Amino acid sequence: MAGNTFGKVFRVTTFGESHGAAIGCVIDGVPSNIILCERDIQQELDRRKPGQSDVTTQRQEGDAVEILSGVLEGRTTGTPLALLIRNKDQQSSDYNNIKDVFRPGHADQTYFQKFGIRDHRGGGRSSGRETAARVAAGAVAKKILSLESIRVISYTLAIGDVRAMTIDYDVIEKNVVRAPDLRQAQAMIERINEVKEQGDSIGGIVETVVIGCPSGLGDPVFDKMESRISHAVMSIGAIKGIEFGAGFSAAKMLGSENNDTPVVENNKLKTLNNLAGGILGGIATGENICFRVAVKPPSSISRAQLAANKDLSLQKIEIKGRHDPCLCPRIVPVIEAMTALVLVDTLLIQKTIR
Amino acid sequence: MAGNTFGKVFRVTTFGESHGAAIGCVIDGVPSNIILCERDIQQELDRRKPGQSDVTTQRQEGDAVEILSGVLEGRTTGTPLALLIRNKDQQSSDYNNIKDVFRPGHADQTYFQKFGIRDHRGGGRSSGRETAARVAAGAVAKKILSLESIRVISYTLAIGDVRAMTIDYDVIEKNVVRAPDLRQAQAMIERINEVKEQGDSIGGIVETVVIGCPSGLGDPVFDKMESRISHAVMSIGAIKGIEFGAGFSAAKMLGSENNDTPVVENNKLKTLNNLAGGILGGIATGENICFRVAVKPPSSISRAQLAANKDLSLQKIEIKGRHDPCLCPRIVPVIEAMTALVLVDTLLIQKTIR
Amino acid sequence: MAGNTFGKVFRVTTFGESHGAAIGCVIDGVPSNIILCERDIQQELDRRKPGQSDVTTQRQEGDAVEILSGVLEGRTTGTPLALLIRNKDQQSSDYNNIKDVFRPGHADQTYFQKFGIRDHRGGGRSSGRETAARVAAGAVAKKILSLESIRVISYTLAIGDVRAMTIDYDVIEKNVVRAPDLRQAQAMIERINEVKEQGDSIGGIVETVVIGCPSGLGDPVFDKMESRISHAVMSIGAIKGIEFGAGFSAAKMLGSENNDTPVVENNKLKTLNNLAGGILGGIATGENICFRVAVKPPSSISRAQLAANKDLSLQKIEIKGRHDPCLCPRIVPVIEAMTALVLVDTLLIQKTIR
Amino acid sequence: MAGNTFGKVFRVTTFGESHGAAIGCVIDGVPSNIILCERDIQQELDRRKPGQSDVTTQRQEGDAVEILSGVLEGRTTGTPLALLIRNKDQQSSDYNNIKDVFRPGHADQTYFQKFGIRDHRGGGRSSGRETAARVAAGAVAKKILSLESIRVISYTLAIGDVRAMTIDYDVIEKNVVRAPDLRQAQAMIERINEVKEQGDSIGGIVETVVIGCPSGLGDPVFDKMESRISHAVMSIGAIKGIEFGAGFSAAKMLGSENNDTPVVENNKLKTLNNLAGGILGGIATGENICFRVAVKPPSSISRAQLAANKDLSLQKIEIKGRHDPCLCPRIVPVIEAMTALVLVDTLLIQKTIR
Repeated sequence: MAGNTFGKVFRVTTFGESHGAAIGCVIDGVPSNIILCERDIQQELDRRKPGQSDVTTQRQEGDAVEILSGVLEGRTTGTPLALLIRNKDQQSSDYNNIKDVFRPGHADQTYFQKFGIRDHRGGGRSSGRETAARVAAGAVAKKILSLESIRVISYTLAIGDVRAMTIDYDVIEKNVVRAPDLRQAQAMIERINEVKEQGDSIGGIVETVVIGCPSGLGDPVFDKMESRISHAVMSIGAIKGIEFGAGFSAAKMLGSENNDTPVVENNKLKTLNNLAGGILGGIATGENICFRVAVKPPSSISRAQLAANKDLSLQKIEIKGRHDPCLCPRIVPVIEAMTALVLVDTLLIQKTIR
Repeated sequence: MAGNTFGKVFRVTTFGESHGAAIGCVIDGVPSNIILCERDIQQELDRRKPGQSDVTTQRQEGDAVEILSGVLEGRTTGTPLALLIRNKDQQSSDYNNIKDVFRPGHADQTYFQKFGIRDHRGGGRSSGRETAARVAAGAVAKKILSLESIRVISYTLAIGDVRAMTIDYDVIEKNVVRAPDLRQAQAMIERINEVKEQGDSIGGIVETVVIGCPSGLGDPVFDKMESRISHAVMSIGAIKGIEFGAGFSAAKMLGSENNDTPVVENNKLKTLNNLAGGILGGIATGENICFRVAVKPPSSISRAQLAANKDLSLQKIEIKGRHDPCLCPRIVPVIEAMTALVLVDTLLIQKTIR
Repeated sequence: MAGNTFGKVFRVTTFGESHGAAIGCVIDGVPSNIILCERDIQQELDRRKPGQSDVTTQRQEGDAVEILSGVLEGRTTGTPLALLIRNKDQQSSDYNNIKDVFRPGHADQTYFQKFGIRDHRGGGRSSGRETAARVAAGAVAKKILSLESIRVISYTLAIGDVRAMTIDYDVIEKNVVRAPDLRQAQAMIERINEVKEQGDSIGGIVETVVIGCPSGLGDPVFDKMESRISHAVMSIGAIKGIEFGAGFSAAKMLGSENNDTPVVENNKLKTLNNLAGGILGGIATGENICFRVAVKPPSSISRAQLAANKDLSLQKIEIKGRHDPCLCPRIVPVIEAMTALVLVDTLLIQKTIR
Repeated sequence: MAGNTFGKVFRVTTFGESHGAAIGCVIDGVPSNIILCERDIQQELDRRKPGQSDVTTQRQEGDAVEILSGVLEGRTTGTPLALLIRNKDQQSSDYNNIKDVFRPGHADQTYFQKFGIRDHRGGGRSSGRETAARVAAGAVAKKILSLESIRVISYTLAIGDVRAMTIDYDVIEKNVVRAPDLRQAQAMIERINEVKEQGDSIGGIVETVVIGCPSGLGDPVFDKMESRISHAVMSIGAIKGIEFGAGFSAAKMLGSENNDTPVVENNKLKTLNNLAGGILGGIATGENICFRVAVKPPSSISRAQLAANKDLSLQKIEIKGRHDPCLCPRIVPVIEAMTALVLVDTLLIQKTIR
């Protein structure tokens, strides 16, 4: 109801504020006897953590995870998995001067309007820090997907106007912007640094491919695969749009162009171009699921801008602190995590249907 | 779980197949003492029904709704509202020849893969006909929203390359494509007719504006307003993308461009351009919520195309019958309905929070 | 949320008022390819319908069910099953004189307090008539359980002070009170007739045995098998208590008496007396699940009694009409239905766990 | 789905095993701006903790709670409340010798059957220790109820054959068995000590009264107040039966005896005897809600008994360790907590209905 739980069978509830004691999550519905240890989760958290490179925030947060329950001798027991990440390196006093300011582009204003109270320290619950708990849960989901040979791969397709020309999954983790094209990665890094020097930030596009998704996953009517993935991915703070397969370009196509032409390969039904993005009628076809999201430029910029105060007066502010000039590099593991949560859930739901 | 229910407090469960006995829905969680009659629902159904004009399918379906329960002497009683629409004008035998064919772009293949059985008559449950039940439920939601002065307005922004130049809400229902620009509406109609004559179909873009949404609606983290609207709207069969406010163009912007500049009007906090689309941190700001969706061209075209059979052989098919050459005109009330369902739900949820 | 849906995977939503147009239900989550026809459902409805004998109400209601969706050529398709029962033989005008009276023991008062409006015609939604929709849903559940050789058997254990001495499942449907003891059934019938002649009513106890429940069903912590069955069964209007296995007598026992002694039979773990009622830690052991419920005497009696009016004045009333002098005979299929709903749900949930 | 979450609006998810790192819970849906501190929770935990007296287990567990999130400067923020209780005083090695034994009356057998793996250390998740997390959540619920002047009071009505003769709420916390009758409390203590010396345990009855519940709470049909309270309370490990108002004695009554006679007091509708237990048609009348539960004797006894092993062989065992000879004294706060969770939830749900 209150929006902090995701999933139907594999249910993740996250908690925690940016500058509170801890963040974390409880996952109910984890199948029993899955081999799992803290290292499985830690390695995904390390992909999201701040301070990885020059193009991300310089904050240093270890984000060490502790499994509090649900695992016995390296195997899940079928009981809830509680994952805890203590907050460290909090500089809450940094935020005292913005206690009554609504930072542009942030949720300061709306949390106050919703709850009549807000945790001003680093955005509180609305902070991007909350996504660490999602990545932790997603790591568990990925572990289960790997047993079914399902892979989720996200990468930075574009930063501003700089776009990847080739797609090579193997180079994604070999460049700090997580682009699938090493040459363009370099151009992206330069663009980010340029923007950063101006005290500004920049947006981008992240593309995701799900490989090995069995046909039949996803549910009709209200829980179509597009619906559930959109729900999951659009819940990540900075994402303002999503499109599957041909996406917005389908709006300009004729039916004869957009309908995929079937081909049979190794006794399996495929299509020539998979313009449908691996989904028909909301249900996976067995081809790669493919979608792209629009990532807005980070709202925290050091350039002076006008902001409203709680009392509705306006003032110029310059946001201090160590902020990401572009979210794409660090949002990649978050998108993968949210996508993995949807896939595990549809996988478990499918067991109840036939 | 199985995907036929939408909403948390205001919960709509739809049922029915295109060529079965009936379609309809049950709505649980309707507040008591709302004035409601069948005419309220029928007028919305009439906006969605086939046969409205030359640019929609020529099928004639009355789609007469019956309220089976939940209303006493013109007022809701707080008990479930059951709405029934009997199917008529079914020409099921039309579909006998495609019993074992997977029509391109349709869910024929995936329903079979999911369930091991499929209702081949007109797409069964995956038919667009199912959306009549959503429109009926949405009519009830709109009735409740109107008590809070909240309006949901959708319109055809573009058909293929033809795009509205002006936005005039008053002309939307005065042209058969439901465009907000009478002049461009004419061009859109011409484009659809052109395509139709070629036995083809065409896509488009529908934009939605929510006027009067109170600030504070929507929930943090997983149930952000964008998440819930995306979930709702992406569950409509032909929609392949959605973007809020600046949407995909934000991916090319700098933070200093994309952050909205606050202004105070009549003691209310607003922004210069509302690039955020009326939502910050997933919660409504009180400004208009604005989003656009990509509508793919209808998959049923009479031009010959290659299709796969259940036994994986391929064959040429020409889809007979009376199909929409463009979905935009009739999808407008469906998008409004799904948006209204989300808004009513967030409105009722908000009552539990403060 | 609003209480008209039961179940997690196999989800039943009922609708309808006693004197409205119809009652019925929608079941989402029915596995595909289950053989099902209207007769399967009708035969359970016939066990619940009024007018079966002298000891039940003399109202004649056919309660003919129509399957509106979800079945194709005798098999479920995995889409929602909508079941419709039109109301007939409604004598709504009978109720005009009690429009502003709160009948003792009925929900008249509380529905008005809850909703600020109530359907006074025959109790509206609070009428026992609503349970017909449950029995219809339960019939579908039983069909699925039968595929796993699980049987649910309820019977009248006692009417007032008259108690069955023997338990013979084969005679239950051979006497009008549905007792498992033909001799005591006769005494029960006499007791009911005695009470009926006095314009009064009488309570009783119904016992239920689930045979063939696989070990492992039921969930830990909040969804223990006892919890879910209690939830289900206590939601039947007239039931005021439930106990499993030794039940309230366990409150007087020592641990050494109440702990079941294990025995091994045919390589299966059993117990000497199954005092636990087939459940340990909320999870089925594989032995028979056994529970008893207290059924209160029907509140509608023709003897004069004091009642409150909406304006808080008091008056003497005599309730006219054709009412059951004892609910046990007709509540038996309702308890079976609710139990079957729980069992099917736990069966489907279990598929997601290992 | 997997049973570790309770509630619809006020949703509690508990986690943790008896001998794992920690137990705790996350509560989503806590209204904002409620004054709350750790002491509010700790004082309820102290009522449940072991080692309070001679008649409870001698284990010493501090059960110190930490609020990890959701509270800012002494007020709830509307975000999830995470409560953590680290496990201490764990003597896991005590359990090595029962790794492959199914202790009689415990969930050892059924957890293994359900999950194919079990945490044998102190019962793991099935341990009564899990209820500490419920009590913590219940403390938050009680805080909210107190704002509406709703009180939940549970007490030991009987231990074995010794029953309270008078009901004086003020003495409940003044005797170690939490009986409402000081004289009979002494007899209960003697009975427990007698049983304890024999290496045995004993059952009892706990009664609960809810004072100040507004009329209208509870939902029709499947979520009747009795249903939801039964679900909540029957999910406590040792409880095997529940009855409301007249309960099982109603099974022997006539309608004319069981129907409550209305009286009007201070312009409020009441009844002479409240045999209905404060609930009609599943909805609160405004009178005290009253129910009783049967608490079985603890399964862990030191007297020798026969137990089954995982390989289905049988052996004599004597359960060592420090166990409760009677659960009533310590189950009282757990029952109060579960009842409070239901009441807060119905209170919040009611806000969405009118």
